[in-house]
Amino acid sequence: MDTLKVAVAGLGTVGAGLLKLLRDNGELLADRCGRPVEVVAVSARNRRRDRGVSIENLAWYDDPVLMAREAQADVFVELIGGSDGVAKAAVEAAIGAGRHVVTANKALLAIHGTELAKAAGEAGVSLAYEAAVAGGIPIVKALREGLAGNQVTQVFGILNGTCNYILTEMRATGRAFDDVLAEAQDLGYAEADPSFDVDGIDAAHKLAILTSIAFGREVDFDGISTEGIRHITPLDIAYAEELGYRIKLLGIARKTEFGIEQRVHPCMVRRDHPIAHVEGVLNAVVAGGNFVGDTVYVGSGAGAGPTASAVMADLVDIACGRHTPTFGIAAGQLKKAETAAVDRHVGEFYLRLHVVDRYGVMADLTSVFRDERISLEAMLQRGRDPDEIVPVVFITHETDEAPLRRALDRISNLDHVVEPPRMIRIEPL
Amino acid sequence: MDTLKVAVAGLGTVGAGLLKLLRDNGELLADRCGRPVEVVAVSARNRRRDRGVSIENLAWYDDPVLMAREAQADVFVELIGGSDGVAKAAVEAAIGAGRHVVTANKALLAIHGTELAKAAGEAGVSLAYEAAVAGGIPIVKALREGLAGNQVTQVFGILNGTCNYILTEMRATGRAFDDVLAEAQDLGYAEADPSFDVDGIDAAHKLAILTSIAFGREVDFDGISTEGIRHITPLDIAYAEELGYRIKLLGIARKTEFGIEQRVHPCMVRRDHPIAHVEGVLNAVVAGGNFVGDTVYVGSGAGAGPTASAVMADLVDIACGRHTPTFGIAAGQLKKAETAAVDRHVGEFYLRLHVVDRYGVMADLTSVFRDERISLEAMLQRGRDPDEIVPVVFITHETDEAPLRRALDRISNLDHVVEPPRMIRIEPL
Repeated sequence: MDTLKVAVAGLGTVGAGLLKLLRDNGELLADRCGRPVEVVAVSARNRRRDRGVSIENLAWYDDPVLMAREAQADVFVELIGGSDGVAKAAVEAAIGAGRHVVTANKALLAIHGTELAKAAGEAGVSLAYEAAVAGGIPIVKALREGLAGNQVTQVFGILNGTCNYILTEMRATGRAFDDVLAEAQDLGYAEADPSFDVDGIDAAHKLAILTSIAFGREVDFDGISTEGIRHITPLDIAYAEELGYRIKLLGIARKTEFGIEQRVHPCMVRRDHPIAHVEGVLNAVVAGGNFVGDTVYVGSGAGAGPTASAVMADLVDIACGRHTPTFGIAAGQLKKAETAAVDRHVGEFYLRLHVVDRYGVMADLTSVFRDERISLEAMLQRGRDPDEIVPVVFITHETDEAPLRRALDRISNLDHVVEPPRMIRIEPL
Repeated sequence: MDTLKVAVAGLGTVGAGLLKLLRDNGELLADRCGRPVEVVAVSARNRRRDRGVSIENLAWYDDPVLMAREAQADVFVELIGGSDGVAKAAVEAAIGAGRHVVTANKALLAIHGTELAKAAGEAGVSLAYEAAVAGGIPIVKALREGLAGNQVTQVFGILNGTCNYILTEMRATGRAFDDVLAEAQDLGYAEADPSFDVDGIDAAHKLAILTSIAFGREVDFDGISTEGIRHITPLDIAYAEELGYRIKLLGIARKTEFGIEQRVHPCMVRRDHPIAHVEGVLNAVVAGGNFVGDTVYVGSGAGAGPTASAVMADLVDIACGRHTPTFGIAAGQLKKAETAAVDRHVGEFYLRLHVVDRYGVMADLTSVFRDERISLEAMLQRGRDPDEIVPVVFITHETDEAPLRRALDRISNLDHVVEPPRMIRIEPL
């Protein structure tokens, strides 16, 4: 068969990684594809930068949109990034020109996934994005094809390696968030502006994509309730350990009686759950189906090699003529997204306060819980320290989130409660 | 598009599970396949047995080979089992008749995989077998397609749920192998004749298949060095815990300087490795590639639901026209299997002896290690009990397996060594 011709836009870490992969594994790939795969054109900001791999014999385009439209290529690989602007324009141009698209761009798919899927469907081309979720873990393939026999019940996971690294280091060393974040920035695990990662936005982008595959729905990034890890303290991590939990930033999509829940926030997970042991920059996804039960996937969520591996998997599929609709079913058949409101969530909660240690404080606190019909599973207050500020921890039984939020509001306003209470959801998983 | 017509041979747990899955998830499946999927013909031993699902309107065949040849079906699903006999004849007949084949039969593929792959390739049909390895975990798809960009470096895992259940229970309760096996038989986790599972044969069948996908080689079941779990004692499990390890029956295929290693045997794995926490009847596979690094997959390795889920994934692929060569590359291009001899293995070892506690015993033992140039990392002997039989444990540094085996032979013949020494390989993973 003819060579599969590829145009690559964006030659940062991942783009350069892809070129190296094709160089190092080219022979094997030709066997697996039944035909050679060749990069014929590239576009990037700087033509002369040393990337450790030659681009001399490739057609060069200053403008990726022009390349998407005009390059003599079967596939356009978008590694530019960003939900709008040139990345979106280039992907649209490629689809419009009848080319398959492979992208690692989670933001683009989370925001514009539905319309792009429709455009790709109408053009009869693949819009593939294995690299957009959980890096090298082939979770898109596993969920969209490997579990295709199932009604998915839930999908959740550790979707951001930066946050998982920070939480792992905080636990291992007892250091504070800001301190570990600075170190992660030095090591290149976190960006200079870390908010995309630590505020949960990147994880929410990935969750939006997983939710659509899992439940056959239009992408609904705006429907996700998102909370990051900035407020996690060494004190809460220590309490979590003591109570048999580990704190992880999870993205969770689950079928409930009120619709599909979509949430990104720190969770306490039991230490005997496999996901509790996924540490450092690793990612992990749990996908459950009505016949298969739960399945777990762990691996590198970022980096040149793993991401290039995922992009290549999509290219092999295209080279072999294996096509799957963007979100697993024809884009026109995707259900309208109706995400359940987060206060419909039902679960157990960890609450930690700082109070002035005085007679009567406990009675004030517990009467708030009683008024909101929240029953308590445990209360921890170590020692006594009259008139000083001490931490108090409550674990609730299963309760609705709405009354819990009301209780927290009231507690914030009590005398002797000296800072806003911290709440971390406990996930049964 | 036209309905995908399916003939199913074998209506045991898995076959009945598949019919239920098509009944329960049929609408969703039609969306994912872009066409209806329908079972039109079945064959089993007993037509009248109550399977919890109706087969009234389906064409019935007493002879699965005849059904494979003559039924008006696009796909033949083989759920009969056994490496030869009627299962093999039926699969050959279906391929000969130009039908796609989906099978859950690991023994068939481990023994005859290469020739069947060639036959399927020549006939231009799919030979799909997601259910043959690790049940509901889509590991065949992940390895063959999801990691297709990589040169695979290693693939290993917990491939037999029965053994993992027995080892988990032995550790949790301190009970002996025979006792836990009897319980597993009562619970239906182990067969009346358990040797297929507990002697590692089932795991070796699965490993043979994984090795072929991972390394693009012809299947080589006979080249696998296989050892089961009958000789694992509560004492060794307790020592493993004390030393920071957990004992797992692993199947391992790895690229070494002497060729591809293929081994199935109990291993000590560090307790901080994710696979150490895969307990009970769960399966887990680790697959590593030169770009992706290690990826881990965990889920149910057996049972009606998970296995039916895997069979259905293959049917969805076929319905969507997604085709992958049986072992990832054209069968004619598979390399001849040359498996490295197990005594070329290099690793650390756990050795446990029972000796009579006398002066001079230790000197005799350590001089054997010295003669074979085996260096020791640790030695454990708790307390003293003169003239009584006591356990002694050695952990070696990395060493070749050949001299280690010579040392064990010599040690068996020493005075005061009262039973053959036990050896368990320590896997660095």
